[in-house]
Amino acid sequence: MTKQFSLHPDRLFPDAPATKEIARSLYAKVADLPIISPHGHTEPSWFADNAPFGDPSSLFIVPDHYVHRMLYSQGIRLESLGIPTIDGTEVETDKRKIWRIFAENFHLFRGTPSWLWLAHAFTEVFGIKERLTAESADRYYDHISEALQRPEFLPRALYERFNIEVIATTESALDDLRHHRKLSESGWKGRVVSAFRPDAVVDPEFPNFSKNVAELGRIAGSDVSSFAGYLAALKNRRQYFKDVAGATSTDHGHATARTENLSDEDAAALYQRVISGAVSPADAETFRGQMLTEMAKMSVVDGLVMQIHPGAFRDHNQQIFARYGKDKGADIPKATDYVNNLKPLLDRFGNDPRLTVILFTLDETSYSRELAPLAGHYPALRLGPAWWFHDSPEGIRRYREQVTETAGFYNTVGFNDDTRAFLSIPARHDVARRIDCGFLARLVAEHRLEIDDAHELAWELAYNLAKTAYKL
Amino acid sequence: MTKQFSLHPDRLFPDAPATKEIARSLYAKVADLPIISPHGHTEPSWFADNAPFGDPSSLFIVPDHYVHRMLYSQGIRLESLGIPTIDGTEVETDKRKIWRIFAENFHLFRGTPSWLWLAHAFTEVFGIKERLTAESADRYYDHISEALQRPEFLPRALYERFNIEVIATTESALDDLRHHRKLSESGWKGRVVSAFRPDAVVDPEFPNFSKNVAELGRIAGSDVSSFAGYLAALKNRRQYFKDVAGATSTDHGHATARTENLSDEDAAALYQRVISGAVSPADAETFRGQMLTEMAKMSVVDGLVMQIHPGAFRDHNQQIFARYGKDKGADIPKATDYVNNLKPLLDRFGNDPRLTVILFTLDETSYSRELAPLAGHYPALRLGPAWWFHDSPEGIRRYREQVTETAGFYNTVGFNDDTRAFLSIPARHDVARRIDCGFLARLVAEHRLEIDDAHELAWELAYNLAKTAYKL
Amino acid sequence: MTKQFSLHPDRLFPDAPATKEIARSLYAKVADLPIISPHGHTEPSWFADNAPFGDPSSLFIVPDHYVHRMLYSQGIRLESLGIPTIDGTEVETDKRKIWRIFAENFHLFRGTPSWLWLAHAFTEVFGIKERLTAESADRYYDHISEALQRPEFLPRALYERFNIEVIATTESALDDLRHHRKLSESGWKGRVVSAFRPDAVVDPEFPNFSKNVAELGRIAGSDVSSFAGYLAALKNRRQYFKDVAGATSTDHGHATARTENLSDEDAAALYQRVISGAVSPADAETFRGQMLTEMAKMSVVDGLVMQIHPGAFRDHNQQIFARYGKDKGADIPKATDYVNNLKPLLDRFGNDPRLTVILFTLDETSYSRELAPLAGHYPALRLGPAWWFHDSPEGIRRYREQVTETAGFYNTVGFNDDTRAFLSIPARHDVARRIDCGFLARLVAEHRLEIDDAHELAWELAYNLAKTAYKL
Repeated sequence: MTKQFSLHPDRLFPDAPATKEIARSLYAKVADLPIISPHGHTEPSWFADNAPFGDPSSLFIVPDHYVHRMLYSQGIRLESLGIPTIDGTEVETDKRKIWRIFAENFHLFRGTPSWLWLAHAFTEVFGIKERLTAESADRYYDHISEALQRPEFLPRALYERFNIEVIATTESALDDLRHHRKLSESGWKGRVVSAFRPDAVVDPEFPNFSKNVAELGRIAGSDVSSFAGYLAALKNRRQYFKDVAGATSTDHGHATARTENLSDEDAAALYQRVISGAVSPADAETFRGQMLTEMAKMSVVDGLVMQIHPGAFRDHNQQIFARYGKDKGADIPKATDYVNNLKPLLDRFGNDPRLTVILFTLDETSYSRELAPLAGHYPALRLGPAWWFHDSPEGIRRYREQVTETAGFYNTVGFNDDTRAFLSIPARHDVARRIDCGFLARLVAEHRLEIDDAHELAWELAYNLAKTAYKL
Repeated sequence: MTKQFSLHPDRLFPDAPATKEIARSLYAKVADLPIISPHGHTEPSWFADNAPFGDPSSLFIVPDHYVHRMLYSQGIRLESLGIPTIDGTEVETDKRKIWRIFAENFHLFRGTPSWLWLAHAFTEVFGIKERLTAESADRYYDHISEALQRPEFLPRALYERFNIEVIATTESALDDLRHHRKLSESGWKGRVVSAFRPDAVVDPEFPNFSKNVAELGRIAGSDVSSFAGYLAALKNRRQYFKDVAGATSTDHGHATARTENLSDEDAAALYQRVISGAVSPADAETFRGQMLTEMAKMSVVDGLVMQIHPGAFRDHNQQIFARYGKDKGADIPKATDYVNNLKPLLDRFGNDPRLTVILFTLDETSYSRELAPLAGHYPALRLGPAWWFHDSPEGIRRYREQVTETAGFYNTVGFNDDTRAFLSIPARHDVARRIDCGFLARLVAEHRLEIDDAHELAWELAYNLAKTAYKL
Repeated sequence: MTKQFSLHPDRLFPDAPATKEIARSLYAKVADLPIISPHGHTEPSWFADNAPFGDPSSLFIVPDHYVHRMLYSQGIRLESLGIPTIDGTEVETDKRKIWRIFAENFHLFRGTPSWLWLAHAFTEVFGIKERLTAESADRYYDHISEALQRPEFLPRALYERFNIEVIATTESALDDLRHHRKLSESGWKGRVVSAFRPDAVVDPEFPNFSKNVAELGRIAGSDVSSFAGYLAALKNRRQYFKDVAGATSTDHGHATARTENLSDEDAAALYQRVISGAVSPADAETFRGQMLTEMAKMSVVDGLVMQIHPGAFRDHNQQIFARYGKDKGADIPKATDYVNNLKPLLDRFGNDPRLTVILFTLDETSYSRELAPLAGHYPALRLGPAWWFHDSPEGIRRYREQVTETAGFYNTVGFNDDTRAFLSIPARHDVARRIDCGFLARLVAEHRLEIDDAHELAWELAYNLAKTAYKL
């Protein structure tokens, strides 16, 4: 007999008598709320073109770095998974063969959030009930391949079926937003907004930085030979993102949370150094830091919510980077300081009620030590949800346990799925809702939160805080 | 119908069948033990003068930085809460209006220890059962205002009602301890002792350091132009604190835990540099570190227990500091090293059975990595309880979970309320007793602690360890 | 009535209704699996000579630094425990008197893993049921003394009774492995292998480093005046450990995880500096780092599994070190970086499927931030179990909670007891099996792991992963 997935209605609720009962009642009221997805990496072209997704492997394996990293860690070569190379190495092209490797190794994901997300997508989205194994691999492949050709599996149909109210994509400052333009002209009622990601034009160590800045000047019609012209170009692009793609936020993926508060003269002089070619690591870091503060200054005026996502040592594996390029599961978190690093920005704008800066971390030690105290004090600061490696049942639970007592609930901003794996979105939001309801239920069961307050908070965490914080 | 607070008899006990039952039985035996409050910031004048506390806002809002910080983080200006300014900015003086703002925003405290402490004070101390909301704000205000005028709400009456056996205040080394003197002459049976806090005269970066040292010399009758005279003055003041105010401890609030072990000549030369005016940050840090070791040396002789409270970045928000001064909820913890920093002091006195140094931390990562191993080895070291941001249900639970296996229970020192919010004292001790009983109960339910041992430990944690460690 | 130990059949299982039931069923299937002990510090001479263990104090107190440290922290002098000194100070020689001190203070171990291990050894190994107290001390002493003279308490009998399938000892690179040789000639069926520990000959700050290297050259018959000759000598010794003592692993106890990736010329030049006498701390650290990479290079060829155990500040207490020497409970963990430190080694060999490097930590903050992401990506990396201070119920639970979601189960390597306390080995493995089963049971009860998968994983964690990862 083929084994089934047990996608149990009580999954992820704590196994504690009163708590579980309360969690059920809280979850029942938020389970079907629309999804607010204020930060992520889906492709706007999916919704603009509404073309069928490809085969199962291209959908579930090739683009998912959670999947790569685990398979790779156990000795499975990325070539055999069909991950495209940049050095010309040949890769597997037989999609069914790729799928079989994945299926044979699906046990590696036991205990991980990928298992939850994938099991949810297989059972809820595709209606498959048997478990994924070497034996069932081909049936899976056939079933999913066939489904993807049907109209109800087109991107827009899935958006609607997933009950998404709004979803944000993330585009480079240099993007022409053609897909968003096409979307807004299409008359489709789905809401897909962009987020303004300027790393390529504010980080002097970004590949082709000078070229990127020149391109920025060109598309913004601004003379970027001066710092003032450069800032004007950025303002212009921010406005373009608002106008064309409904952007309400910016996103910043620096290696550290360092900010600066230079005088205008010093900032302008630094700019001249960084665009004139060879830049020292110190100048690069200072410039990135100064640009976070400049972005905050612009946000005070144009209202875009800032997101700071620091702390990853990107592309730690140099062989993988050389062969496959970025985003192949080789980014490793490191210890991150917020208290000293954010002070320059906070000295300028931390008390400004017009600014919202949402902070993320990959270093869980900063939750109770730094982030909750900072967000529990500065009016301009809010805490983003548990991120990346920590977007998981244990991770979200630790986040609430370590953040709530100092920052409360209202200095947090609900959930972000932050994913390029479109089919995992309902699963991810569901996991967050269940864990949050379980956390609230424990507080109620321990008689330190009133049940009616818990219901209000469950709605805030599942829906309203994201909507409000991101101005959606 | 107005909603009630549910101050449930089982509150804070784990929702686990056997554990809860055991927690109840452990707690029943310690719930009514007298309160030992060995470290805190209540005002000795309250007990010396025994005058009525002011209005509800002056009692619950204005002095409580936990309350400021949360309200401020959500955009409520401190002026509107009547927080006094030092730059002349006008502030709200209508106490009822202040109270209403607090009441309207009481939902912000959901899930925080402030909610627990305040709910406890409202219901247990004032007998109010309805919840605090915008609607009930005025009834609260009237009820509390009226109560505060009654004799049973005078400071001494509350001290007795709270079943306090002894409470420590904290005074600057320069304080003349007049309130303690008045108290000891009053014949009142309450026991209010002081703790010797020398930051103002041992930290070269403290405002007016040189002036403070000169004042120290004057009141101690010692020539502080030499290091020897300076040390003699400190010894004199320590003795004065013991004699006049029953002090059994000192308290040290440095930014780091750094200690030094300089030769007498080097220490004397450093002293000459730091009192002669402009001091380098490096010299200041070295001097603070040396003075911790000098204080340990004095403690070996006079028996005062040392408390080291490091790790806060004080007054992180420069605009708030400029307008309101210190202690307005803008202190942010940072990563703190104990292993290297304490070594110089420990090299000298760590093995001395006459010394007790109680260590605190705001960096929870140091519990299992550094503090429990240190306290589980050095005879002179003990671990203070979960502190400040971590003096909360989750914080105390994490403390026990992360400390006990390496340091055991007997290297910890029971509970400190560390508060200036007098009315929260019973609530805080009650929270600690409940969480500790819940932790012990879990060990019993998991069959790794015997029930009779757990009863003995519950009494140690609630009462005896504090009394013994602080020599009270 | 004398109180009994309650070694309950459900001990260490979570007090949660469904979870406990599932934990029982998982544990039932793994409780009696043979013990794989792939890393530890038992003495091969015990098994080679099969002589009776000494008296109770020499067995349980004198060699156990967990026991020293706790007693010492509460003011009990190590002399009174009979710990041998190196400075000639006299120590207690009356073993019964030492035992009585231990018994009188046994309450200090409440809540610690030592309590669990000792209670298990007393009840399961010696059949004593009453608790250890001042009153029962002499009966304990007599009972254990007598038992130790009986054949069923000889080392080989205990090895068999403990159901050990294989146990690894750890020997210095300079050891002649005479006990292992004797063992293999003895015809006894027990399997005792060695692990190659080269600290004495790769750490320039190790006492007598130059002398050690000279000795290495002598016994390996290699001219160590050149770096090539030195490396050849190390290869020779590694082969000797494999041939003579069945070694499958090496072990490295550096203070940090720093690795280097020097050119052959730079490495050779550095070697000349470090063997020529006075070595700078920087050179010493670089050399240690380079030698980890050299060891990895050798492992790629000879297949020995590398273990890296960094992060202890050894001999923190200088007075204790001066009087008693190493390993007296005064080693303190410190913050440890893996992301930057391991990169040089990983750049060379991290993707090599022939290499296995098992990482350990004393800094729990690195679990979710660094170690799980690293091991969840690099094929050459695996995560060792919770180590030393963290080899405890709470420590193992935190390890699984913080590691599993990113690294999964298959990048971990089961359990290490890492002990010199032979009688604690069954207890330690039992604790790990119970906690792991409890963790798996919670995942099943929360419906995020299938029960049949959990059974498979329980077997992997209790038995197979250690066997496979260590090639045993």
